This record gives sequence, structure tokens and C-alpha cells, in this order.
Amino acid sequence: MKINRNFDNLVPSYLFAEIASRTAAYVKAHPDNRLIRMGIGDVTLPLPPIAVEALRRGADELGVKETFKGYPEYEGYDFVREAVAGYYRSFGVTVAADEVFISDGAKSDTGNIGDIFGADNTVLVTDPVYPVYVDANIMAGRKIVYAPCLKENDFLAMPDKSLSPDMIYLCSPNNPTGAAYSAEQLRAWVDYANEHDAVILYDAAYEAFITDGSPRSIFAIEGARTCAIEFCSLSKTAGFTGTRCGYTVIPKELVRDGHSLRDLWYRRQATKFNGVSYPVQCAAAAVFSEEGLRQVHENLAYYQENARVISAALDEMGIYYTGGKNSPYIWLECPNGLGSWEFFDLLLNEAQVVGTPGEGFGAQGEGYLRLTSFNSRENTVEAVQRIKKLLSSSV
Amino acid sequence: MKINRNFDNLVPSYLFAEIASRTAAYVKAHPDNRLIRMGIGDVTLPLPPIAVEALRRGADELGVKETFKGYPEYEGYDFVREAVAGYYRSFGVTVAADEVFISDGAKSDTGNIGDIFGADNTVLVTDPVYPVYVDANIMAGRKIVYAPCLKENDFLAMPDKSLSPDMIYLCSPNNPTGAAYSAEQLRAWVDYANEHDAVILYDAAYEAFITDGSPRSIFAIEGARTCAIEFCSLSKTAGFTGTRCGYTVIPKELVRDGHSLRDLWYRRQATKFNGVSYPVQCAAAAVFSEEGLRQVHENLAYYQENARVISAALDEMGIYYTGGKNSPYIWLECPNGLGSWEFFDLLLNEAQVVGTPGEGFGAQGEGYLRLTSFNSRENTVEAVQRIKKLLSSSV
Repeated sequence: MKINRNFDNLVPSYLFAEIASRTAAYVKAHPDNRLIRMGIGDVTLPLPPIAVEALRRGADELGVKETFKGYPEYEGYDFVREAVAGYYRSFGVTVAADEVFISDGAKSDTGNIGDIFGADNTVLVTDPVYPVYVDANIMAGRKIVYAPCLKENDFLAMPDKSLSPDMIYLCSPNNPTGAAYSAEQLRAWVDYANEHDAVILYDAAYEAFITDGSPRSIFAIEGARTCAIEFCSLSKTAGFTGTRCGYTVIPKELVRDGHSLRDLWYRRQATKFNGVSYPVQCAAAAVFSEEGLRQVHENLAYYQENARVISAALDEMGIYYTGGKNSPYIWLECPNGLGSWEFFDLLLNEAQVVGTPGEGFGAQGEGYLRLTSFNSRENTVEAVQRIKKLLSSSV
Repeated sequence: MKINRNFDNLVPSYLFAEIASRTAAYVKAHPDNRLIRMGIGDVTLPLPPIAVEALRRGADELGVKETFKGYPEYEGYDFVREAVAGYYRSFGVTVAADEVFISDGAKSDTGNIGDIFGADNTVLVTDPVYPVYVDANIMAGRKIVYAPCLKENDFLAMPDKSLSPDMIYLCSPNNPTGAAYSAEQLRAWVDYANEHDAVILYDAAYEAFITDGSPRSIFAIEGARTCAIEFCSLSKTAGFTGTRCGYTVIPKELVRDGHSLRDLWYRRQATKFNGVSYPVQCAAAAVFSEEGLRQVHENLAYYQENARVISAALDEMGIYYTGGKNSPYIWLECPNGLGSWEFFDLLLNEAQVVGTPGEGFGAQGEGYLRLTSFNSRENTVEAVQRIKKLLSSSV
């Protein structure tokens, strides 16, 4: 009996444990000081009423013999797949309902998608990076190469002719940097993938935050249907982090090694997945209705205004950052050449504001800190005032 | 770019497609004859009211800021893990709450568990077999060996010293045969696994149907905590096939290759899973309450009585079968030496009853047919009468 020894190559992440530990120590020493947690990577506003109503309706149907639902289709109910295809149409992108696979979330899918690819592929990820792409592929024994995101490229890495990746993870708008690719930049990636027989694994989990006309889907780019898989989620779009629903789109034209990747994924899901809870699928479909999208946009606007408040303050202070405009995340350069953890400590101790040290997302994150727009308006405004006061006195 | 070429080794299953096709052809030719579908592998009674109520309460909590829930713990909420541990206690088995991992179903977990094991392990499955164990391991490139289930061993394969499996899938009560291992038989497997450094992957999805005192968990067997992982589900226990919730138990003592398998699975789930929908977890916990179990047992009793009706008729006709007593499944020998598909056609054409040909579950299933107890009482009684009439006239 051998375990999967690739697990030995995983680097344990102490990021959130270390944040919790330093924060707890501060609170213990200063029980009367009110902390504002601006590192939150999770939504805080309640579900839109239309989603709650649909969850309840789905539950009621399960309680009555005539409307009871047993095993769902592995790929999702048609009414949800159609709703997702309609959502894409609403921003001008065409995907067929039968190219949409409903799942319990983009995280599961970005990890599990590896099942359909060989273990000897090379995987490109950006640095800094959402750790799931790295860890899932280390578990599978794949070689990882890193595309550095730097101030010089506005934290948007572009194709590097010296690397030959087979699988390319892109996340736009990015977690953790909030930076969003333009259509021109995405076209460069699509062309590169098509030329090199690579597959782009495109995480669009934050697409609903885009406001400046940047592409909301890789499939807005010509040529993407022969080289890309897209993952998306209702987690940030509609506050579904605790409700759990996402979707993955694989075009029929996407063929590698003589195999349709859509068919391989169907076989993978049919074998190792059994579909999404019926009431959750009802809620997902409700979100994509006209009234659903109206309710969703109210919540998004609240977070977007928080992001604007933070961005405006950084602009005022002349601090470099990415995100904030197309994203709930703001990725800022630590002032005065401070390291990620030094600035984290300064904010914690002197302003009682908790951020997330950028170094926790990769080597290129050193010297940066992530703030998020998921706290309340009042706390966001106060956190920004505290930071401004601290930096005007210490600079 | 290489796809996972292990997919080429998967054998496409035409079982249910072929059943659907033959059934549709019959219906087309005889539109006035009423079919009774006794091959159904899915529950048909509605969710217990307490589960519906809990789903609704969970949905309501998500709709209010003060009770909103974001990302769940990967391993499940403590209140559900405690409820599962309490359920085990109710039939005399001790597992700790922090050994319980809540998931979206046993199928996902029995497939995904492979992630923590090396690809060079040999996997033992019984024949006939639930196809997920086979296909998930073929996808991972593992060698599969088969332990034949035969009339001679009452369809309960026992350890074979000539094989050296590293991973052993057991399902008891079995899908598709309904046969349940005794404590003595399970002890032989546990001893074998401990002696050979193997791990038993024990699928207990049908444990709630056990009525004769057979073990409801592998952990009822001494020594199992050092060699077994158990998968279970609310699908058949509480009608959750469409609601989606299961759990996997990995004891802290289970160590292989110097690694705690519980810790490896935690790391796997933390990377490639994001927890179960909050309302679904509320429903799961409700099922394990005293009132929940009372309601669940009402539904189980209904299916159990259907199984008794079928078993009694087979006893009367002198037909050999397994299951029916500790299981919703009845696995019967086709009369008069008929093959699985021959008997299927005979039942379809002459009695308008649809079963599932045993051959679809593996070579040793040839000559057998599976009936299930998930239809209504009325239909079950009528199907049995039709079969009796047919066989008394044709024999």
C-alpha cells in the first residue's frame, strides 16, 4: 500500500493561521480596541430574496411525492444550464446549454479538472496565485511553472515564449490582485494556447465585478473555443459561498489528443460526482432571472462602492495598487518599502485594521497587501480613515 | 498537451441506455399495456417533513444578514459531524466527530478517495460491482482485480490469499446483490487487510436497511480502525438522492506509509472541495435527531415491506436470491437457466415488468436480475403477481 507521495511536495500554508494567531495576540493584549477585518475573502451580505424563495420552493417540492426529485443529472438540470447560457447571452457571449456543467463550486472544478489531463503535462500559474491551482496539480504530480506578476506588467502576466506549458491557469479579475485582463491581452493568451496546443483553464469567478468593459468571459475572445475551459461560480456573483453552486463551460470544439474534453469531463463527472442539490439548482436558476440579476446587482454595487472608497483613498495617498475597479480586491504596494508582514503588523498594531499579506499568495506577493471590499460600508470608511491617519503621521 | 489516456481503458456502460431502449420499443409497440418499473435504483418517497423544515430554516438564515453563512468548513459543520457521531452511537459504534467528513455524497467520496493513494496500488473489487469503484480507479491508472461473488459464496466474496490487493472496496449491504456480510465475515476481511497492509474502502450506503443484526458499520469490527475508511450517505437512509449529502469516516489510527490518511483526506478536501451547502447540512443534522430518525424509519419500513413482498414470492416459487432482507435490492437467479437479458426480455414482454439485467454489473452477474423495492406498494404487489403468473404458466 502506497499513499500518493506527491502530497509530500505540498507546501503547508500558514497564511490564514498566522493571521489568526497574530490577530488573536493583539486582541488579547488590547481587548478594548475595535479591530476592522479587511482581509475577509468571503461575502457578508445575505442571499438575494429571490434565491431564498427558490431554495424554499425546492425544499417544498422535495417534501411532496408528486414533485419529489431523486438523483439529479450529473451535469445539472436543463433549466439551470439554459439559465447560465442565457446569462452569457446577456453580456454578448454565446455558449450552448449543453456545454455548461453545473457543480458545487468553481473550486471543486478547477481542482478536479486535472482528472482529464495527463500527469506529465506542465502547468503554468501566475505568481501570486490562488493556491488551489498549485496544490491540486502538485497532488497529481505535475510540474508547475510560474509567470511572475509584477508592477512592471500591472500584475497581468503575459505569455512567455521561453516556457512551454500544456495547461495554463488564468484568473481574471484576479484573486488576489484584482487585476483584469483586457480583450487584447486575453487574445494574446488565446493565440498562444492555440499555437502551442495548450489549454487555458480560465477562472472567471469574479466576472460580475467587471465594470469597465473588460471581457467577462474568455469566450468573448475569438479562438477561445478551441483552447479554453471556463470556470465560474455564484459565490461572489450572488453570495453563494455558503449555498454552493458553480459552473464549468467546455466548448464542443475543444479537442486534444483526439478527444473531446467536454466528453471526458462528462465521463469524469458521471463517475465521481452525482449532481447538485435540487433546491440549490432552483436558487441558481432564480439568480439568473431578470429580477434575480437586479437583486444581485444591488449587492454587487454595495461591495463595488466599498472598493471605490478604498481605491479613492489609495489614489489620494499616492499608493500603487491593482484591482478595486473590476474586483472586490485591492492589492496595494506596502508603503515605505515595508515587507508584507511588516505592513500587516503596522496596520494591526497602529490602525487595528487586518489585511492579508501578499507574500502568502506567492513570492511575487512580497511587499504587497490585499484588502477586500466585503466588510460593511461603515467599517470600510473607518478603516480607510484609520489607514490615512496612520500613514500621514508615519510617512 | 496530453489527455489522461487512462480514460481509453474505461468500458462504456450501455446498461441503462439499453434498458431504456428496449423498454421504449416495447411501449411503442404496446402503448396500452401498463409497465411496472422494478429496476429503479432511486428512492421515490418524499423527504421526511423534518428535513424539509430544516432546508427551509437554513434557506431563511441565509437570507438574513445576522444569520447569513459564508464558506462552510471543508469537513462539515461541527453540528452535523456531531450528529453523525451520535447516529453511530445509536447502533453501538464509536467514531469521533472529528473523524467524520461531510460531503455531497458517497459516490463523490468513493471516487475521490483515490487522490490520496498511489497510482501503483492494486485495487480489489467484487464482481458484480457498483461501477464507480472500477471506473474511478481505471481513470487513475490502477490495476483492478476481481473477487467473484457466486451462488457458492452467497454473493459474499471472502479474502483470497492468491491476490495481494492494496485497496479493497467492499459494499455491504451490497449494491447490486443486496447481500450483507456477517460480523464474522467482516472480521476475516479486517484481519486480512491488517495483515497485508491494505486499506478497506467500505461503502455502507445501505446500512439503514439492515434488520437482522448484521454490522451496520465496518467499525463495529475489532481492528477496523487501523485498516478501514467508511463511506455512507443519506441518499437511501433518508431519501437524499436529490438533496445530496453523505459522509466519510477515517479513524485517527489509520496510518499508511507513515501518513495519517485522515490528514491526507483533509488536505485533499481543503484543496479540491469547499464544503456542503448550509441548508443541506441543516437537513442532514435534522435527520439524525430523534424525531428525524422516527420519520426516516417510516419511509424505510415502506421499502422494507416491498422487499418482503418480493422475497416472499421468490421463496414461494423456489427461486434463489440474495438481498431483500437487509437491503432494498433483490438479486435473483433467472429461472430455467435464462441469461440476464433473456429474462429481462421475458419479464418485459410477458409481464410488463422492468428489471435490471445482472450482467450489467459484471461478468458474474450473468444469469441474474436485480429488482428493487423503490416502487409503490400497489405496483410491487402487482408486479409480483404478474411474475408469479408468468412463471407458473411458462415453467
